[in-house]
Amino acid sequence: MANQSLQLVLVTEDPYNAETPLSALLNEVTPLDLVYVRDHFDIPQLDATKWSLDVNGAVEKPFSISYAELQALETKTLAVTLECAGNGRIQMDPLPKGTPWGYGAVSIVEFTGTPLFNVLKMAGISDRAVEVLFRGADRGEVEPGRNEWFARSLKIDMALNSDTLLVWEMNGKPLTPKHGHPMRLVVPGWYGMASVKWLTQVTLLTEPFSGFFQNEHYVYLDDEGTREGDPVQHIRTRSLIVSPVDGAVLSKGELDVIEGIAWSGYGPIAQVDVSVDRGDSWLEAELVPPSYPHGVQRWRFKWSSQTPGRHTVLSRATDALGNLQPASQRWNRLGYGNNGPHVVVVSIQ
Amino acid sequence: MANQSLQLVLVTEDPYNAETPLSALLNEVTPLDLVYVRDHFDIPQLDATKWSLDVNGAVEKPFSISYAELQALETKTLAVTLECAGNGRIQMDPLPKGTPWGYGAVSIVEFTGTPLFNVLKMAGISDRAVEVLFRGADRGEVEPGRNEWFARSLKIDMALNSDTLLVWEMNGKPLTPKHGHPMRLVVPGWYGMASVKWLTQVTLLTEPFSGFFQNEHYVYLDDEGTREGDPVQHIRTRSLIVSPVDGAVLSKGELDVIEGIAWSGYGPIAQVDVSVDRGDSWLEAELVPPSYPHGVQRWRFKWSSQTPGRHTVLSRATDALGNLQPASQRWNRLGYGNNGPHVVVVSIQ
Repeated sequence: MANQSLQLVLVTEDPYNAETPLSALLNEVTPLDLVYVRDHFDIPQLDATKWSLDVNGAVEKPFSISYAELQALETKTLAVTLECAGNGRIQMDPLPKGTPWGYGAVSIVEFTGTPLFNVLKMAGISDRAVEVLFRGADRGEVEPGRNEWFARSLKIDMALNSDTLLVWEMNGKPLTPKHGHPMRLVVPGWYGMASVKWLTQVTLLTEPFSGFFQNEHYVYLDDEGTREGDPVQHIRTRSLIVSPVDGAVLSKGELDVIEGIAWSGYGPIAQVDVSVDRGDSWLEAELVPPSYPHGVQRWRFKWSSQTPGRHTVLSRATDALGNLQPASQRWNRLGYGNNGPHVVVVSIQ
Repeated sequence: MANQSLQLVLVTEDPYNAETPLSALLNEVTPLDLVYVRDHFDIPQLDATKWSLDVNGAVEKPFSISYAELQALETKTLAVTLECAGNGRIQMDPLPKGTPWGYGAVSIVEFTGTPLFNVLKMAGISDRAVEVLFRGADRGEVEPGRNEWFARSLKIDMALNSDTLLVWEMNGKPLTPKHGHPMRLVVPGWYGMASVKWLTQVTLLTEPFSGFFQNEHYVYLDDEGTREGDPVQHIRTRSLIVSPVDGAVLSKGELDVIEGIAWSGYGPIAQVDVSVDRGDSWLEAELVPPSYPHGVQRWRFKWSSQTPGRHTVLSRATDALGNLQPASQRWNRLGYGNNGPHVVVVSIQ
């Protein structure tokens, strides 16, 4: 696929946030310059040669580790679907506050790094530790007069998962400043806020973390503002229609294959269904190999019943655990985790 | 405004349904060939010279009146906002069944005809009459094995309203077949289903009408399928953003005026507000004269705070009775009367 003319779609300039153009998502791996960017504050400019990661808190031996020392550890490369928790927010009704993400706050990235447990075991985890806190070098005002670091925690078992990585490369190249240079966390299967960029501190905690980005932001709030369940964590099962594009005007038969992607933070995709009649009837799409544990599942559907007029094309995915996309957008006050159906309107002439 | 390149937007071919392109709505009157078309069945082909209207039921003197005889009565011309009850259905979530209307199932038409009461008084209304039933020449299958005429009723007071017209001209030209030739009813302020096309029978009823298009279709059903209130009647207060168009990509300052229209079936528009920050804050738009009782109110808003990135522009209208558009799409099972905010996404580069 030629991506020459594609570019990131600017969402906000300050802080810089930009989406992946949907057509780039048919690539097995999203080209580096088309990977979506989600920033909360100014982008830290860090020098890898001066940077080090502090590992402290409830550990036997607090220590610092340099960029070069980390790269000398066991390396692991994983293709990972990274999705912003606010992806699809713009389709929610009423429109929530927050960055107005369309559907392009998702990318497939080949990350190279080392499993976090390699570093944690060097420090020796105290029996009293219950969580691991990750702090980035990015900090700013979250409400008037209140400044916060970007920080998120993981429970110990998730931190020790062999796919939870400290990462210095994406798509075979060093991380760029906007993607967390020199070092970031990557938590496959979780929305992007867990994959802390510009990582500088890893702290073992004896109490659960209750910072802004875990207890006030990136939480599911109902209509009254009451919090529901855990903070935002796993990526909910979702599918996108990549071709044809929304608003396409086509001659009959010009494009008789509908193509898209599907993914879930809970496991591989088991089935994708497509409806060309507003959800009245659903037909199973063909899953296109390959399938990676944390990647996306590409799919295609032969649309043989084209009639002139306007059509609403919907897709819905089911993962191996039986998690089916809901029939409507999943509204919550801050607009997270919306995995409602992607509705694409197509006119056949 | 040049409309040369504009054409109706096909929604369904059989029956034929098509939308007005939004940009045509900035005209004071919608050009005849751009007026939206809503058909339930095949379009009847009627010969005006052979056509007559039967007036019967609970009247003193049942009679028929010819096309020429009707045109010899007092004539009245009104600019009327005609809107399909399903307009905006495609924005509802979950997507209801039914014709997938976008926002263009609305037009402003200059209708010429005679007030219905001129005909009713010729017949003499019985004291026992409670409703007037209007039947079109269009008929077809509404469910397998069940055929119905298109028919709707009005209560006597609404039928006698001096703006309820029997109409033979639109925009100064005879009605075309797809708009109800030779004669249709026009009920200003009500959704289009009340303005029965291809009218052939007017029947005074002593019991309320309970036909398909009044009791099963064109009713508001909740999530469980329970009917709420009256059948679909008055047009709910609504506004549309006509310029810029949804998805527009603009240079900063290229277009610093947002323009649109607003209307209500309950009365004139008192105020239109615009938000360029996802409904966080609202600013009042300027209402552009003229203002007609049943027409649309044009409005404009100077957008002086453009910053690079994606913006969601929303409008909301309030009519003179204080009816304000709701903050979200008004979902109901059959997808009628949705007057939620029109959200237009604009990218400033």
